[in-house]
Amino acid sequence: MRATLIHGPHDIRLEEVPDPRLLSPTDAIVRVVAACVCGSDLWGYRGVSPTKEPRRIGHEFVGVIEEVGAGVRDLRPGQFVVAPFTVSDGTCVHCRNGVHTSCERSSGWGGIDAEGFFTDAGQGEYVRVPLADGTLVPMPETPSEQLLGSVLTLSDVMGTGHHAAFTAGVRPGSTVAVVGDGAVGLCAVIAARRLGAERVIAMSRHAARQALATEFGATDIVAERGDEGAERVRDLLGGVGPDAVLECVGTKESVAQAVATVRPGGRIGVVGLPTGGGELPLATLFRANIGVVGGVAPVRAYIEELAPDVWSGAIDPGRVFDLVLPLDRVAEGYAAMDERRAIKSMLRP
Amino acid sequence: MRATLIHGPHDIRLEEVPDPRLLSPTDAIVRVVAACVCGSDLWGYRGVSPTKEPRRIGHEFVGVIEEVGAGVRDLRPGQFVVAPFTVSDGTCVHCRNGVHTSCERSSGWGGIDAEGFFTDAGQGEYVRVPLADGTLVPMPETPSEQLLGSVLTLSDVMGTGHHAAFTAGVRPGSTVAVVGDGAVGLCAVIAARRLGAERVIAMSRHAARQALATEFGATDIVAERGDEGAERVRDLLGGVGPDAVLECVGTKESVAQAVATVRPGGRIGVVGLPTGGGELPLATLFRANIGVVGGVAPVRAYIEELAPDVWSGAIDPGRVFDLVLPLDRVAEGYAAMDERRAIKSMLRP
Repeated sequence: MRATLIHGPHDIRLEEVPDPRLLSPTDAIVRVVAACVCGSDLWGYRGVSPTKEPRRIGHEFVGVIEEVGAGVRDLRPGQFVVAPFTVSDGTCVHCRNGVHTSCERSSGWGGIDAEGFFTDAGQGEYVRVPLADGTLVPMPETPSEQLLGSVLTLSDVMGTGHHAAFTAGVRPGSTVAVVGDGAVGLCAVIAARRLGAERVIAMSRHAARQALATEFGATDIVAERGDEGAERVRDLLGGVGPDAVLECVGTKESVAQAVATVRPGGRIGVVGLPTGGGELPLATLFRANIGVVGGVAPVRAYIEELAPDVWSGAIDPGRVFDLVLPLDRVAEGYAAMDERRAIKSMLRP
Repeated sequence: MRATLIHGPHDIRLEEVPDPRLLSPTDAIVRVVAACVCGSDLWGYRGVSPTKEPRRIGHEFVGVIEEVGAGVRDLRPGQFVVAPFTVSDGTCVHCRNGVHTSCERSSGWGGIDAEGFFTDAGQGEYVRVPLADGTLVPMPETPSEQLLGSVLTLSDVMGTGHHAAFTAGVRPGSTVAVVGDGAVGLCAVIAARRLGAERVIAMSRHAARQALATEFGATDIVAERGDEGAERVRDLLGGVGPDAVLECVGTKESVAQAVATVRPGGRIGVVGLPTGGGELPLATLFRANIGVVGGVAPVRAYIEELAPDVWSGAIDPGRVFDLVLPLDRVAEGYAAMDERRAIKSMLRP
């Protein structure tokens, strides 16, 4: 089969690799129908995270089950499934606590699973899925081309945006600011509105993303950053910061923006993968009773809750895909996101 | 009147000072019936926080209203009142949000109030209370000598312990570890049980405090610290850390203990005044979805909720006072706490 490998900075290639096969009775083989490029994939692409040797890449995909191992009980060939961005067994104490990303048998796509076997990454034609019953979530049917993007967001960005809003305690009437206008930030706008937020302020300087944020339910746009941005948000809210800030970037600057913006007693839902090496200023948080919650999103915990709203059309997060490419043009998908010409690239094998 | 001043490290004196008088129509004058020494007062006593010039000290007291200004509506002379450890107006947006410590007209005892007037501190015979309607909470009657200590804890330590447990989301069935066996840590044990925690593990190496923690409802005691302590807590809970860790110390070591102990997806309620200058390790928290909440406790928000349980005897936090002294022996009260001979010293003018 063909799959994507990253060789180094700005060097993404589609190559022939061995076809996956069942290695454990709890495995499934999934034919990928759609995959995508994550903002966090760009850290390797930009060379911020070094690539020591060529490796498979991609952790968001949906597809059709081709084959299941003898130990798989709840899935069958032909089902259309969503794969969350980490493998989890669904049975350990952390999964039962809803923290599937801390599963005792957790592993990542393109990595080594809990049994020591290599696991395919998502940007390819097929994937061997370990712990298939725990990991994969079957959809009611194969989605239409129109629904496909929104279903694909359940593998990461929609669940991640929801995690920010949910952990930060967004509820009916809340005031919310979203730091970051990438796909996760845009999905966080959807999530905040879905949980009942009355005001959702999207912090964005990019016209197309501002427009999409507004269509997703943002009530206000703030283009300013830093102290000026925080001040502008407070102005919009009658002088007081928002109840929740959803931090969807992960840089030192974006975390500082969240701290400067949230009101005393408010909470920051952090879902941007921390790349700033930053630490949180405990004394500042303490004085103002600012809570910092969130983390690497256990999206597996949310798929069943979010999927019905995708299928009913109540939310339409798939609109973050503004570039759809055949898999053999994967390099273009990375370049477009890197240069911020695309919000998010979908790849079709 | 007589009031306590701190002159420098290990130098606490009771001195003659001017009698307070009403300076603003919203003031009240309170005759102090009982005050106490806070763990945070020891930072000055130990010289960790420098004392540039002699200053009044003490921020926890209860007493009887002697006189009220013309603008005070809800209080009258003769009422027995609890004073929380900061002044707040009760009407600004932060007070309405339950974050009275961030009140727009907040000030501290022994400091300068929002109108620019000096405010007496709590370890004295009388106190001028600014914004009396917002700040003071009247009790149903004058408490008995037996109840006095528990009522006095509503001014700080009981509310602070509650803040740790409440913000960390302790609920029926929760598992909890408490870092710190001072008065706040012991009150956090009470608070966690009061909110329904099933397991409360008190981390303490001090026999008398271990005993009191157990009487307050701790189900387990762990004397070990560091990684060994965290491991011991996990052993007690079947291999998984607690849902909540209540951090009631504020040093670099105690914050690290909390981070090392809590389970993935759990929350740390931080109420120990940060003295470690510490920052929080964002990447570590992020990977395990550990939330950090709490802060300087807005105890004013909790007095009405906690007082009935004190008056009914359902909780008995006043047992943290293991040393009661007349005000003129205030220096002994500091020394006993500094040397850990007393958990908490009560002072009677």
